[in-house]
Amino acid sequence: MGETAFVIEPGRHDIVMIRHFAAPREAVFRAVTDPELVPRWWGPHSLATRVDRMEIRPGGHWRYVNIDAEGREYAFRGVYHDVVAPERYVRTWQYEGTPEDVALETVTLAEADDGGTRYVAQSVHQSVEARDAVVRADAARGGRESMDRLAELLAALP
Amino acid sequence: MGETAFVIEPGRHDIVMIRHFAAPREAVFRAVTDPELVPRWWGPHSLATRVDRMEIRPGGHWRYVNIDAEGREYAFRGVYHDVVAPERYVRTWQYEGTPEDVALETVTLAEADDGGTRYVAQSVHQSVEARDAVVRADAARGGRESMDRLAELLAALP
Repeated sequence: MGETAFVIEPGRHDIVMIRHFAAPREAVFRAVTDPELVPRWWGPHSLATRVDRMEIRPGGHWRYVNIDAEGREYAFRGVYHDVVAPERYVRTWQYEGTPEDVALETVTLAEADDGGTRYVAQSVHQSVEARDAVVRADAARGGRESMDRLAELLAALP
Repeated sequence: MGETAFVIEPGRHDIVMIRHFAAPREAVFRAVTDPELVPRWWGPHSLATRVDRMEIRPGGHWRYVNIDAEGREYAFRGVYHDVVAPERYVRTWQYEGTPEDVALETVTLAEADDGGTRYVAQSVHQSVEARDAVVRADAARGGRESMDRLAELLAALP
């Protein structure tokens, strides 16, 4: 299993998550933009994921719901600014429990020399304080588990 | 004429622009969200503005075009994440000449004690470098002129 790296510098607005996948870029792009595949990798192991809405086009809405063992729901939503297959999408991002904080997420997929894919997800928040609150909520653990699950899914896809 | 203040700190991702208007919040909200009114205040004095698209709802697109005396066009576009009348909208923002840089703009209108409105526009960019490039392009001058034009428009509205 590969490693997920984070860049979280003090006093800045953003969180960067980087992962190498042993799969071609088209396959990674499909896995991150197909509403049927997202529930198979998005979120920590302990939570189920339901995709309520995922319109992969500029102006399209997305809404994912995490569900815990007691059935409690944690919803995330936003809109797509740009979708450039198979290399990039830019979308807004909001946890519905903290509607005052919106982030801009940019996911970039680059072809690596070994035929694999370098995945970079950057979220820039409206304030350093909001960014730090997300870091304190252990977003890195959730991100790392998502990336591990995505690697497993990519290995299993035909 | 009032003053427009800016908060642009070194090493950060954002630009904040603040202005007090001697008009009620509903009037300011209308002026910044009505496609018929935007060309009357948006942009510097030296450029005309055309609104190609402005769908004031989550997922709605917007596109404004600045036109100089020689007819050259400079276009800006994005999508709305949230629109909460009369207090706030959040939208993405991109100059089409630099498609690699997207920003998240939050405009907040608060009722001031004197019956006027405190307008705060924050743009957070994907990188400090992109933010600094916008600052170097003299965005503050354009913002200040827009705010002065908006104050004049508000004084003239019935």
